[in-house]
Amino acid sequence: MGKGNGAPVVPPPDNHQLQAVVEFELQSKCAEGWNLRVNGRTLESTNPIRTITDGIEWDKSSGKSFISLALGDPAACGSHMRVPDAAVTSLVEVVRNCEHNGYAVSSGLPDCRRAVADHLSEKLPFQLSEQDVIMTAGCNQALQVCLDVLAFDGCNILVPRPGFPIYETYCKFLGVESRGYSLLQEQDWEIDLDQLVELADSNTAAVIVANPGNPCGSVYSYHHVAQIARVAEKLRIPIIADEVYADMAFGGRKFVPMAEFSLVAPVLTVGAVSKRWLAPGWRLGWIAVCDPHHILTKAKVMEGIQKVMQIKLGPSTLVQGAFANLLRNTPKSFYDNSLRLLEEGAELCYQRIRTIPGLDCPSKPQGSMFMMVRINPAVLKGIKDDVEFSSALVKEESVLVLPGSAFKLANWFRILFALPLSEMTEAWDRIEAFCNSRYKASISYTNGTLNCTS
Amino acid sequence: MGKGNGAPVVPPPDNHQLQAVVEFELQSKCAEGWNLRVNGRTLESTNPIRTITDGIEWDKSSGKSFISLALGDPAACGSHMRVPDAAVTSLVEVVRNCEHNGYAVSSGLPDCRRAVADHLSEKLPFQLSEQDVIMTAGCNQALQVCLDVLAFDGCNILVPRPGFPIYETYCKFLGVESRGYSLLQEQDWEIDLDQLVELADSNTAAVIVANPGNPCGSVYSYHHVAQIARVAEKLRIPIIADEVYADMAFGGRKFVPMAEFSLVAPVLTVGAVSKRWLAPGWRLGWIAVCDPHHILTKAKVMEGIQKVMQIKLGPSTLVQGAFANLLRNTPKSFYDNSLRLLEEGAELCYQRIRTIPGLDCPSKPQGSMFMMVRINPAVLKGIKDDVEFSSALVKEESVLVLPGSAFKLANWFRILFALPLSEMTEAWDRIEAFCNSRYKASISYTNGTLNCTS
Repeated sequence: MGKGNGAPVVPPPDNHQLQAVVEFELQSKCAEGWNLRVNGRTLESTNPIRTITDGIEWDKSSGKSFISLALGDPAACGSHMRVPDAAVTSLVEVVRNCEHNGYAVSSGLPDCRRAVADHLSEKLPFQLSEQDVIMTAGCNQALQVCLDVLAFDGCNILVPRPGFPIYETYCKFLGVESRGYSLLQEQDWEIDLDQLVELADSNTAAVIVANPGNPCGSVYSYHHVAQIARVAEKLRIPIIADEVYADMAFGGRKFVPMAEFSLVAPVLTVGAVSKRWLAPGWRLGWIAVCDPHHILTKAKVMEGIQKVMQIKLGPSTLVQGAFANLLRNTPKSFYDNSLRLLEEGAELCYQRIRTIPGLDCPSKPQGSMFMMVRINPAVLKGIKDDVEFSSALVKEESVLVLPGSAFKLANWFRILFALPLSEMTEAWDRIEAFCNSRYKASISYTNGTLNCTS
Repeated sequence: MGKGNGAPVVPPPDNHQLQAVVEFELQSKCAEGWNLRVNGRTLESTNPIRTITDGIEWDKSSGKSFISLALGDPAACGSHMRVPDAAVTSLVEVVRNCEHNGYAVSSGLPDCRRAVADHLSEKLPFQLSEQDVIMTAGCNQALQVCLDVLAFDGCNILVPRPGFPIYETYCKFLGVESRGYSLLQEQDWEIDLDQLVELADSNTAAVIVANPGNPCGSVYSYHHVAQIARVAEKLRIPIIADEVYADMAFGGRKFVPMAEFSLVAPVLTVGAVSKRWLAPGWRLGWIAVCDPHHILTKAKVMEGIQKVMQIKLGPSTLVQGAFANLLRNTPKSFYDNSLRLLEEGAELCYQRIRTIPGLDCPSKPQGSMFMMVRINPAVLKGIKDDVEFSSALVKEESVLVLPGSAFKLANWFRILFALPLSEMTEAWDRIEAFCNSRYKASISYTNGTLNCTS
């Protein structure tokens, strides 16, 4: 490094402690000369959703407003779906009283843990205690802490495909193998349990089950949830139940928590304030250890979770302080209204897709905020696959959808249906125009016969 | 598992998908039968501070109020030191406007990043940009993300001893070797640079430098900070500068940021709102990549940090939204007042220690919120070491101090001096009584001669 380039003046090393190094000449500096071998796993660990949504660019000169159907963030949709009033009042109260600016104990504020335990227990055949719940920085940290603890060296983790990509990304980050089991589109995205059994072996440390499902919008029946528990029991594998969309089921479907069957197989339920209370920016989540037979406890899983939380530390004390009152003071009408908006949104998308050439949606969504739409590239000119579809769509129509490849399901795309109907109608008008302009086949009925010409 | 113990009724597996497993008999369940081999590193990774402070118990029947000098949480000390008024007003505004309930981009809100960049640049010979700053969930996550990225397989990390235990704990969690370099008590806890040079080798990925220092209360001179940079340059090792106590220097000492010398050696500066703004519960921190020669950039360190943040996600959007206004609207008097209170607290402790038999404090604290006190077990009856001292003290006097062993310095203890003077006076009265009652030596002057009898 030259001396004349604005470097601050460094006093010469005149201390005896520097004797070991003063004989070295100053060398010109370059990255290669420095001892920097960045941990390769961090560069390889990609969150495809964030990579896409953090870096999107579109043609602002087109005059078209940008509509994102990509990120599961209902809070980004203005006043259409927003946090319950009690979220604001309880948090303002906490900020004002200045009693929640300090550290919380690593497992979380006792009141908050108790509120989560009571809330989850309403739907369970047993009562969770405050001791069974650990507060985390969002469902994301909850999932990661479960994997930190359960993933032993050389293990594998069973994850759904299509599925939330962080499952596989975080396994990669940990240096652990993930094995994808299929969700069966023709069976409303139920788990292919035969395949699950085939994939598991003596090194399988856990199976992640997402219900209600992201990205598919599926909600499993009581029967299917029971089947999953039975298979886990046979395989002797604990279940990580990703229930961040808990209770977000509609159209006649009822959400059944995996922990309903925690007497059959032990369950780590993860959830958060992010989706049902529409506050992902709060970064408040939880792990509920649903383990009535004390199988996880005996294996020191809870102890491991607590140790990891002492290292990683959890959510802001402020939001922990507000959560019990948020729960207490949120009326049923808030939840009912959310479900109504979600159902209307899902219905609109489902009906629009049916009339758009080159797209279809074989399974009507039953919950969460997402659905998967199938693309038929064979009938869309210039569209090779889902990545090309998404890229061209955002470029030409300023509508962002997430390619199914991000969820390990090529030639589908995921959409959020939690936006205002008017905005979704506009998005679908543009998607329809986009597909129409590329549609290869002309289909007509003549004398009762279907004629299809490319 | 028996059927009669309250288990919910599980429908029989009548689905063809279960054929592969139905022939198995139900087996009685026990932890051993389950595929649970908890990741050993999580059980071995202990945060000694949290282990002690999360689990403390004391004799409530003693009638003595409990005084903790253990955790660095000034927010826990009532109104003595509390967040600036602007923290409350800016956060209330953010909560009320309902625009910060959604996800932030993974690197942090641009406004918040810019505010941090501008704030840090005030003390630097160059200007940091918004692109150089990444928002994190507290300084803790900031440190961990730096290590996630810099720690390659087989590397080692140089860490201070005594030092904040999370450095070593997180290295262990990552499966990475930490090598402790000494802080020289007789030189106001400066780094033993000769030893640093000896410890480093071609697998050294980073050196962590904490200034102002926890647990020692040291503040390094301009000269020493420059020396550290020069050594890092010679060794070709990047510096992780833990400056969570930045600007918290008093008694004539001035804080010099490590990044002042980032033209000499590249620096990752980590900091947070936790200490200077007295809000550790907010969980808001940052990494500033101080790299004017683009050494870290060329090595893809920033890319790695961004990827890790896409996986881990950062702080609550709410506190990010409030930070710029918190900075803008906090008057100088707030910082002046904090420093005055800290200096008074440090002075009180320092003077009290001088008169207590069996204790001494060779270096007067110059910053942060902590100081180290040396114990002489040879003159204290029934006290073998620092752990025994701390245990007996909390049991008998309901005063909690952290044994120096937690910081890898036996026969010292760490105290927080950010409490109200009255509370610290009470704590020292009890510590004095505790030491007096155990003091072995009776010292007297007779005819000008010092007589010491055990």
